[in-house]
Amino acid sequence: MIDCTVRDGGLMNDWRFEKALVKDVFAGLAAAGVDYVELGYRADKKQFSPKDFGPWRFCDEEDLRDVAFPCDSKVSIMVDVGRTDYDAFLPAKDSIVRMVRVATYVKDIDKAVHLGNHVKSLGYEVSVNIMAISHAIEHEIDGALDQLAATDFDVVYLVDSFGYLGLDQIHYLAQKYISRLPGKQVGIHCHNNQQLAFANSIEAILKGINYADATLYGIGRAAGNCPLELLIGFLRNPRYDVRPALDLIQKYFQQMRDELRWGYEIPYAVTGILNKHPRAAMAFMKGVHGQTFGEFYDNLLNTEDDA
Amino acid sequence: MIDCTVRDGGLMNDWRFEKALVKDVFAGLAAAGVDYVELGYRADKKQFSPKDFGPWRFCDEEDLRDVAFPCDSKVSIMVDVGRTDYDAFLPAKDSIVRMVRVATYVKDIDKAVHLGNHVKSLGYEVSVNIMAISHAIEHEIDGALDQLAATDFDVVYLVDSFGYLGLDQIHYLAQKYISRLPGKQVGIHCHNNQQLAFANSIEAILKGINYADATLYGIGRAAGNCPLELLIGFLRNPRYDVRPALDLIQKYFQQMRDELRWGYEIPYAVTGILNKHPRAAMAFMKGVHGQTFGEFYDNLLNTEDDA
Repeated sequence: MIDCTVRDGGLMNDWRFEKALVKDVFAGLAAAGVDYVELGYRADKKQFSPKDFGPWRFCDEEDLRDVAFPCDSKVSIMVDVGRTDYDAFLPAKDSIVRMVRVATYVKDIDKAVHLGNHVKSLGYEVSVNIMAISHAIEHEIDGALDQLAATDFDVVYLVDSFGYLGLDQIHYLAQKYISRLPGKQVGIHCHNNQQLAFANSIEAILKGINYADATLYGIGRAAGNCPLELLIGFLRNPRYDVRPALDLIQKYFQQMRDELRWGYEIPYAVTGILNKHPRAAMAFMKGVHGQTFGEFYDNLLNTEDDA
Repeated sequence: MIDCTVRDGGLMNDWRFEKALVKDVFAGLAAAGVDYVELGYRADKKQFSPKDFGPWRFCDEEDLRDVAFPCDSKVSIMVDVGRTDYDAFLPAKDSIVRMVRVATYVKDIDKAVHLGNHVKSLGYEVSVNIMAISHAIEHEIDGALDQLAATDFDVVYLVDSFGYLGLDQIHYLAQKYISRLPGKQVGIHCHNNQQLAFANSIEAILKGINYADATLYGIGRAAGNCPLELLIGFLRNPRYDVRPALDLIQKYFQQMRDELRWGYEIPYAVTGILNKHPRAAMAFMKGVHGQTFGEFYDNLLNTEDDA
């Protein structure tokens, strides 16, 4: 089980989580038995200014060491293809980071393999998240999976970026990923636009996927992710304990939801139903559009996405 | 598709919906193409005082006629075994009601058959909701289904009262209900404690169930129900139109959610995970307990349910 609370949740507040909160979150997740804790992105500071974002957009080694400690819960960070400084990584033996997750679109798979190879050569575990597959041509997904099958990366993720995929599609894709990636672990990362993140994660687990992403109280971009507390409840595995997660939700995330408003909202449901990037819905939630729900639906129905 | 907005939503406000709202809801749901609109319970006025509840607790014929009109969307009402006045029903030909849904526990199935026979003899369509099956012994569920198979009732519902059942269990139970009820329609009614109401409804539909309950914005007791707007999005059937549903949500239910607080909340998730009646969670939400989430979880874990 991989917690993405700070990394995916940071998409809702530009990663401006207080260090004390992140430290508390890491300790609580470690007590809950979570296997990996993803503490943010390591973005290229030449492309993104530290003045514009909180520290978890960059995940400097010293910031990570302020909040995490060596234990059974490994630290993970995410890197985006094309937004990453290759020189920003220590050799793994000198870092508190254990896993680096490479986020890519299908079209950038060559670059993802290149970046993954670099990180792998430094001694990290490497996983690859292929994003936005509901906008990709299946033949190209197959090609990307075959390229990844030929690497020595550890995990490849089935990702539903737009909260569009249903149970049947998850079932089909899980079988595809598993069969095309012999010897590798396969993971699942869902968004909750249609209240399917938890259900799709279960479906994927039942089909043999065994790296499942989740976040506290489902925090994450737009509709958010699979709630960690529900996943622990489902797994009924004594290595996990839901109580530290409940404590963290009570202390921080219940109130935060009222401010950041991830979760089930009609604009997010609409982009999920229509297989669209959530950016239009996020703008709607900020009042940019001045539209009714019905107008928002009609406009999106007649708009080609640019992502 | 059966809308239960007023009936199940009324459990959150003692059925105190304004008549103008219910009239608007009926018209909008008719425009959306919803097959049945359930407008409340018909409770016995000798047991429940009209002073203590809104009109949709009783569903007097004249109140129904004030809000509904004859169209392709049929009016449905629910009756509880043991809480229903047999004399409160006109012959179906003189009523605007088309379907009467009998709600029962497994242990009361004899009474449910008796009540259903009475209503059926008056000319109504009859469905039976067997509630709280996750607290029932499977052998007794089988017996209840066999009794219902021998009636001339129209529909029998698979009901997840506590939001406990997962995809695998819905799959198993859907097959059971369908195979034990030859010639009858089978329905699904889910609660959303674990964010599984929509997913479980899809799973049931994929397995052959074809009466699916839903409510606008998922309104309903505690965590609420399957959101109607998501179900329409999933079905992709041109007979249904999501836009009138979106308009109703914008006009009424978005704000109402902030007041009544159905939907995903940790106390409801906890009762769902632990297969408990939501009443303890509803008391928690009202601040009755003065407990933390963790204490609530621990107490429930060690408490036998009385329902």
